[in-house]
Amino acid sequence: METKPTEISSSKMYGGFNKRFKHFSPTLGCSMTFHIYFPPSAVDHVKFPVLYWLSGLTCTDENFITKSGAQRAASKEGVALIAPDTSPRGLNVEGESDSWDFGVGAGFYLNAAQEKWKNWRMYDYVVKELPELLKENFPQLDTSRASISGHSMGGHGALTIYLKNLDKYKSVSAFAPIVNPTNCPWGQKAFTNYLGENKADWEEYDATCLISKYHDLAATILIDQGGDDKFLQDQLMPSKFEEACKKVNAPLLLRLQPGYDHSYFFIATFIDDHISHHAQALKL
Amino acid sequence: METKPTEISSSKMYGGFNKRFKHFSPTLGCSMTFHIYFPPSAVDHVKFPVLYWLSGLTCTDENFITKSGAQRAASKEGVALIAPDTSPRGLNVEGESDSWDFGVGAGFYLNAAQEKWKNWRMYDYVVKELPELLKENFPQLDTSRASISGHSMGGHGALTIYLKNLDKYKSVSAFAPIVNPTNCPWGQKAFTNYLGENKADWEEYDATCLISKYHDLAATILIDQGGDDKFLQDQLMPSKFEEACKKVNAPLLLRLQPGYDHSYFFIATFIDDHISHHAQALKL
Repeated sequence: METKPTEISSSKMYGGFNKRFKHFSPTLGCSMTFHIYFPPSAVDHVKFPVLYWLSGLTCTDENFITKSGAQRAASKEGVALIAPDTSPRGLNVEGESDSWDFGVGAGFYLNAAQEKWKNWRMYDYVVKELPELLKENFPQLDTSRASISGHSMGGHGALTIYLKNLDKYKSVSAFAPIVNPTNCPWGQKAFTNYLGENKADWEEYDATCLISKYHDLAATILIDQGGDDKFLQDQLMPSKFEEACKKVNAPLLLRLQPGYDHSYFFIATFIDDHISHHAQALKL
Repeated sequence: METKPTEISSSKMYGGFNKRFKHFSPTLGCSMTFHIYFPPSAVDHVKFPVLYWLSGLTCTDENFITKSGAQRAASKEGVALIAPDTSPRGLNVEGESDSWDFGVGAGFYLNAAQEKWKNWRMYDYVVKELPELLKENFPQLDTSRASISGHSMGGHGALTIYLKNLDKYKSVSAFAPIVNPTNCPWGQKAFTNYLGENKADWEEYDATCLISKYHDLAATILIDQGGDDKFLQDQLMPSKFEEACKKVNAPLLLRLQPGYDHSYFFIATFIDDHISHHAQALKL
């Protein structure tokens, strides 16, 4: 049970390196993998700010690294990318792999309250364990300068984690996020199972509910949403979040991108804007 | 047995579209898939020149489309990308899936001479059937302006197909190509099985042999090779091709890229240079 991360692969890209690590997570009670993209070092001893990327349903720590092309802009801007996995794995909890939108690959970046899913503590893993582990093991990273982004379920994760930890992150952005999980089928299924029936508890993990409490933001929230995304109407509903932001004057740039779907082709097209959005906040 | 291509998926990217098609190939005797990336149209009725991409061992028509990020430069340059599969599939020839470097996913872009592998005619598929099919079905493509590129086994395919068809392609480039298959284990295994024991026949599909015959080139050959590629010494040996080019004064730009491996992370890093190399030749 090695909590210190072990490097399991390394590939050069845009002058820097994609590296994959494995470690035992005490928070989750299982072995986890994550990726870091280290930009090239122009000068020794310069520390890179970090951008966390939270992936969507069914993803691992690999999808963003192999498909987004984010390393190109990250290399140029000198921002390290941190891509964790999306749930605990290998625990063999009964039913954990029965559906693609719950259990394995579907941690929803919360701390489960129900005994059966007690290992599902991706919120604490992303907010507490992972930053601490990076700080201790990678002197080339400046974890005090951090921002957060994500896609779909990971967009929900990025928004909620940001709003609840405005002191920890400089900026947030999201692609096609689940902005109001208490009111969509994906969120209702996950929250019922992980958190129980009390809907007041659910609001702690719902960006549209949280924005009314936490809206003293240092940076504009950037969201891109594909216009031909098949999940737009029933699951994502960005207009709910837009309305909630308007009510409290929270700065939001919501861009509807006509013709784009829910895939990494959409993410790759606009990722440069997101990296640049975060680089600006991280370098202030 | 529909020889006309049917669209099976479509995703917008960088203003254009990745589209996947399925059709029955009379050349190969089975159903095949391929991808086209159509750049955005600034003006109606402008036809796009085409760049064929040939993938490496184990790949399908998907790897390049999901991992290379080539669409970014292709969108900017107005070049369509054509990504075929790497072998016939679904024929159930005995032993076709026994090894990762022969049979399914390993067509080597040749026309097999051995009866058992008679469907393995990826050379004719890429050089004849596919261009004809594109010309007949996609009026937005100008197939008379074509270039060719590829990776590893597909780099071998691109180089040999280009040299044998200097009238059909404006330019060639390759990432980590197998340049001298008659002298490396991958090539020897494939050629023995597909072509038989007569080594004179093998030379017809070996870029290092072919360059002595076909060296009146309109454009410089561009090759990128990763310095930390684990296949460099035993399988790829670009210096063999470099020597052969020097002997006949064939224009070659061979770039050794220190620290890069054999993966799509390497390809993504340098693909813009390749797209720009081809765009220049295609627009003359």
